[in-house]
Amino acid sequence: MVLVHAHERVDDLQLDGLKVIQDPSGFCFGIDAVLLSNFIKLKAKDVAVEFGTGTGVIPILLSGKATFRKIMAFEVQSQMADMANRSVLLNNLQERIEIVNANLVDSLDYIGAGSVDVVFSNPPYMTGSGGLKNPSDLKAISRHEVLCTLEDIVDKASKLLKFRGNFYLIHRPSRLVDIFALARQYGLEPKVLRMIQPYAHKKPNICLIKCVKGGNSELTVLEPLVVYTPEGNFTDEIYDIYGMENITAFTKEEEGTR
Amino acid sequence: MVLVHAHERVDDLQLDGLKVIQDPSGFCFGIDAVLLSNFIKLKAKDVAVEFGTGTGVIPILLSGKATFRKIMAFEVQSQMADMANRSVLLNNLQERIEIVNANLVDSLDYIGAGSVDVVFSNPPYMTGSGGLKNPSDLKAISRHEVLCTLEDIVDKASKLLKFRGNFYLIHRPSRLVDIFALARQYGLEPKVLRMIQPYAHKKPNICLIKCVKGGNSELTVLEPLVVYTPEGNFTDEIYDIYGMENITAFTKEEEGTR
Repeated sequence: MVLVHAHERVDDLQLDGLKVIQDPSGFCFGIDAVLLSNFIKLKAKDVAVEFGTGTGVIPILLSGKATFRKIMAFEVQSQMADMANRSVLLNNLQERIEIVNANLVDSLDYIGAGSVDVVFSNPPYMTGSGGLKNPSDLKAISRHEVLCTLEDIVDKASKLLKFRGNFYLIHRPSRLVDIFALARQYGLEPKVLRMIQPYAHKKPNICLIKCVKGGNSELTVLEPLVVYTPEGNFTDEIYDIYGMENITAFTKEEEGTR
Repeated sequence: MVLVHAHERVDDLQLDGLKVIQDPSGFCFGIDAVLLSNFIKLKAKDVAVEFGTGTGVIPILLSGKATFRKIMAFEVQSQMADMANRSVLLNNLQERIEIVNANLVDSLDYIGAGSVDVVFSNPPYMTGSGGLKNPSDLKAISRHEVLCTLEDIVDKASKLLKFRGNFYLIHRPSRLVDIFALARQYGLEPKVLRMIQPYAHKKPNICLIKCVKGGNSELTVLEPLVVYTPEGNFTDEIYDIYGMENITAFTKEEEGTR
């Protein structure tokens, strides 16, 4: 079995020696995945599900910084799922991370309703596939709601979660009304919102959301996560999240490309 | 007719010579009213409705900085409505501002459905009247949902507004899910959100929301409105909103009291 193909590269995540395989011509992970992995809280006994794992980077990062029993990571694109699975093997994480090559819409065929502690997703940000030249393109599927909608994600997350289970999402602020309205409709109450802003006095371009199944209706809006200082350097919080040495390697190519 | 009673004081708004009567022992306006009046956009032909005008300060401030045809300002508390009405007379604004001493729940008895360009409200922030020692207390009614709920406000605003009419609200970030879900339910799509933060790196404590009746689903989240610099002085934007000279007079007593 070939673990890394010739057209792929292996990135060292500089966290417990963890690595991830990526195809430079395809969809590579960006700052969003790193910020979401930092936002997710897991306990030692937790079974978690990811919708749309892509390269598998979030479960792999979580394995280096959190304890958990298992993460089942769904990925509909077979090439991506295969690559993610090889990254799991490369890190010898097959006992803790299972890559499932299936559409999240069918996730209840793989794991029982009400059995999951945490669901998380860094889903496609764009509504629908309107205007796409090639909706079967791998990058397009990672970025647009071609094969699943936000409503599918919220619906399935709610069905999989135990009562009081947590749902973590990273998305665009422009979709916040859709997210809040759908989450409440499906019984996942939004409890924590954190805006991510390039600068302290600029509009947010990403947001982190935590919902609780069956939670009461009171939202905590955290202080914004600011990426750059006024001088254009990374803020201390971003340095803390990435770790000092590897920040340049992780942000130079992918930031802002979605 | 007595325009100002002995227990009341008259505050000079330092904007076109405008004044407002307040009862120092009752509910006085705070930074919220000033920020909301700055967020509202009115056109010369606009008929606007305010739900819960209190002292009448927002219509009076708007008369100094915006053109509009008429503002009908509802106030359920007869003492507050009387005081607001005397402020309107004191400023000779009775042609442009009408104080209506009625519950906003009954506003459709006073003005036709679908006839209003703009509705705005700085409503009570607290849910229900649970735990209140004296729910008939004037300050309590201004701060708690004793006589109307958020759902009443959204419902009546939607009914009064023309198609594409604007609804402006200032509220607590903790109620954002309630606001977004109710607004969408009643056909008022949230289009603009602005968080107000004491400092650039602190949690927001107030938020401004603009909804459009029949608007499409895409939210613009603006850059935060930051009140203080890291050194504890007011930011330039707050100076601009208040005007340099009168900022101390307007913020020293009421800020943070709600």
